[in-house]
Amino acid sequence: MMDNAHTLDDVARRHLWLHFTDHSEFADSPVPMIVRGEGAYIFDQNGRRYLDGISGLLVTQLGHGRTELVSAAAKQAQELAFFPLWSFAHPTAVELAGRIADAAPGDLNRVFFTSGGSEAVESAWKLAKLYFKLTGKPSKTKVISRAGAYHGTTHGALSITGIPSYRQPYEPLVPGVVRAPNTDFYRSQQVTGDLAVSGDEEAFGRWAAEEVGRLIEREGADTVAAVFVEPVQNSGGCLTPPPGYFARLREICDTYDVLLVSDEVICGYGRLGTMFGCQKFGYLPDIITSAKGLTSGYSPIGAMIASDRLFEPFASDGTIFTHGYTFGGHPVSAAVALANLDIFEREGILEHVTENEPVFRSILERLYDLPIVGDVRGAGYFFGVELVKDKDKRTVFTAEECDTVLGGRFSQALLDAGLYCRTAGDQGDRVVQLAPPLICGEEHFEEIEAALRTVLSEAWKML
Amino acid sequence: MMDNAHTLDDVARRHLWLHFTDHSEFADSPVPMIVRGEGAYIFDQNGRRYLDGISGLLVTQLGHGRTELVSAAAKQAQELAFFPLWSFAHPTAVELAGRIADAAPGDLNRVFFTSGGSEAVESAWKLAKLYFKLTGKPSKTKVISRAGAYHGTTHGALSITGIPSYRQPYEPLVPGVVRAPNTDFYRSQQVTGDLAVSGDEEAFGRWAAEEVGRLIEREGADTVAAVFVEPVQNSGGCLTPPPGYFARLREICDTYDVLLVSDEVICGYGRLGTMFGCQKFGYLPDIITSAKGLTSGYSPIGAMIASDRLFEPFASDGTIFTHGYTFGGHPVSAAVALANLDIFEREGILEHVTENEPVFRSILERLYDLPIVGDVRGAGYFFGVELVKDKDKRTVFTAEECDTVLGGRFSQALLDAGLYCRTAGDQGDRVVQLAPPLICGEEHFEEIEAALRTVLSEAWKML
Repeated sequence: MMDNAHTLDDVARRHLWLHFTDHSEFADSPVPMIVRGEGAYIFDQNGRRYLDGISGLLVTQLGHGRTELVSAAAKQAQELAFFPLWSFAHPTAVELAGRIADAAPGDLNRVFFTSGGSEAVESAWKLAKLYFKLTGKPSKTKVISRAGAYHGTTHGALSITGIPSYRQPYEPLVPGVVRAPNTDFYRSQQVTGDLAVSGDEEAFGRWAAEEVGRLIEREGADTVAAVFVEPVQNSGGCLTPPPGYFARLREICDTYDVLLVSDEVICGYGRLGTMFGCQKFGYLPDIITSAKGLTSGYSPIGAMIASDRLFEPFASDGTIFTHGYTFGGHPVSAAVALANLDIFEREGILEHVTENEPVFRSILERLYDLPIVGDVRGAGYFFGVELVKDKDKRTVFTAEECDTVLGGRFSQALLDAGLYCRTAGDQGDRVVQLAPPLICGEEHFEEIEAALRTVLSEAWKML
Repeated sequence: MMDNAHTLDDVARRHLWLHFTDHSEFADSPVPMIVRGEGAYIFDQNGRRYLDGISGLLVTQLGHGRTELVSAAAKQAQELAFFPLWSFAHPTAVELAGRIADAAPGDLNRVFFTSGGSEAVESAWKLAKLYFKLTGKPSKTKVISRAGAYHGTTHGALSITGIPSYRQPYEPLVPGVVRAPNTDFYRSQQVTGDLAVSGDEEAFGRWAAEEVGRLIEREGADTVAAVFVEPVQNSGGCLTPPPGYFARLREICDTYDVLLVSDEVICGYGRLGTMFGCQKFGYLPDIITSAKGLTSGYSPIGAMIASDRLFEPFASDGTIFTHGYTFGGHPVSAAVALANLDIFEREGILEHVTENEPVFRSILERLYDLPIVGDVRGAGYFFGVELVKDKDKRTVFTAEECDTVLGGRFSQALLDAGLYCRTAGDQGDRVVQLAPPLICGEEHFEEIEAALRTVLSEAWKML
């Protein structure tokens, strides 16, 4: 029984292993602890309040402290608190599968539940491989993903992830993943190697899509199973798709009979103002992978949503998708997801995000008057503010500057200013990411802008 | 809104993708659905009651309908329903880490939380690789696991899994996993290739352990990072360790500086009458992977528990374990786990299991009077009943007989007799697995035995 903060800190220090965290940061300071949430705000062990500028980790769509989600969980847990989806169904998973299929575009009608995002990505790759084995193309096993993209940390998802530093310590990984350029238009000169297309967003997008086609050709189309892309690429710094990019990518996938997997662990469930991110940009994938926002994080669940075509070989002749997770589609998580989607409808969350996207954007764009702000980009409630050393030349900070100006001190300064958010980017953490709960409005955007203005101005002075 | 069974069945049929399930089985019958749980029993959509002979999926240690676990979840969700363990801690994860470290043997003091078992196994392999890279042995990346063992379905965990048919459709996987013999003493002639040791359990165990050493030698000790073993191997049919096996395995791991990972996703949290399975057999691993029983399944969570030595390179110099899961150590799941462990203590669950293990065993051993029962084995509340065609010759059923006698019809017959359990085994499903909730007692064992007696007698007649 630990009844005071001191003891908790001591236990955290001795026994907890935090994720993606430098434990040496706690040598001289307490382990930071979040103890309570309420609406768009979170509170630490000292009672300090922060605006949750990144929705936990792009998760808490409806914000914290929603008693309706708590009640839905408790009600289900009393009835049936656990049963796996192995051989048997249970009602909340069934109902949720129907609800997700109704919301998903096209013939994405079949839902395979997981416990989270990495597992959904793993499931999509396994399904792609097995599907092609069952339909006479057994050598189609490889995957194409994009530079800098994060798709998860289990070995399969990590192999697909496009961040070399996350992969290298764990090599060898699953062979057969090839990486295409991402759609970082602000850095398009770098991405294209100064090709003429780099100044023209549509031409850049066309080029980036064609690069996927060229990669498939070079690997051999008979060896490629799937292309994994996010609607807006999170890691790398909130990279939006150029106009026409996804339309061309869909054509390329069709040409080579390669599955298009839309990894919507971040962009799904309203983040961009549509239920799924692909709907925002008007493309139809073969598989959607999703997790996080489905329950606003109140209970862990993920979902791989596949097209009717992909289920067909498993429908009638006794062929089994030899895959599963004990906690996948947990009855309580499914009940929470249903309640979450109920609130989405009742409160018009998607409409709210779509209406407020321009407000959020224009408030963040005010930051352009700061010399350190090079680019503001994003969609829905998902924006990145890219920091530069020289606005005209788009000069990135050196690794050392990233450490001193944008490192731990920067994160702490943001917290001191009352804002919890994260930084991303493949050349140091140079993009501040903002993805507040979908219930936020103008007053929260103003609060975010004010905090950023203060901290970025200070950071600039430290250069 | 689906308000009747017919509609639910229709939705399940059209939209849900069940795990490890042959969907063609539902061509002419409703999708089986579990709708409610109470104590050791579960109820289907028609109100039929079944004894939960496998605790959901070796998960529901305390049985169904525990309102105390439901309340603990609701209380935490109202306070803080979600926050990730990325850079920040939260109180229930801290408290649970301390609680687990206290219960774990030796210096297994550091807890990395996940959402489930596959993720825990993935984490252990990644940690093993990174640890050796950081301590001057970067080529130590390979893993040794055992034939027939199940360690999960994500690409890394699947690579470690020893069931060829589960891996083959998804090749290529992560390279560098080599498989050692398991400890199937009943089939030791087959396992050893008729070596003289096969009749002597201790000699067999010594041989099986030495085989791991020989594999390490053959691979080159400088290339091997870890050995993954379960205390009692689940898949393959409840394979217990021969006396001396783990002591020798520990010595071998020490000799070659290879980490011993005890995969306790199934055997952890009381299943064998000790908090961890390694405690039952008196060995000290370097890492324990766990999940399932930690919350009795009421909320998804997993934990990788590592020794102090393994955390050391990450403690002070800014080195980061570049790994994490959004839902790992979910605050609600951690709260449920704490309540679960409270009940373990208050109700003396471990003592109850230890006291009743001989009762369970002796009641199951009554089945030896049936000609089809070849072997009864297990530990704690985890037993397997191996079915044979000829008891003296230990003849296994042919694949065809497995299909007709032990296939879907057999599972249905068990359900008809009021018992929900599963069958396992690497040569057809020839081992009936029994792992009821840890609250069960003699009356439940009697019920299990009676159901098995009826169904096995019928199956024998069908041969």
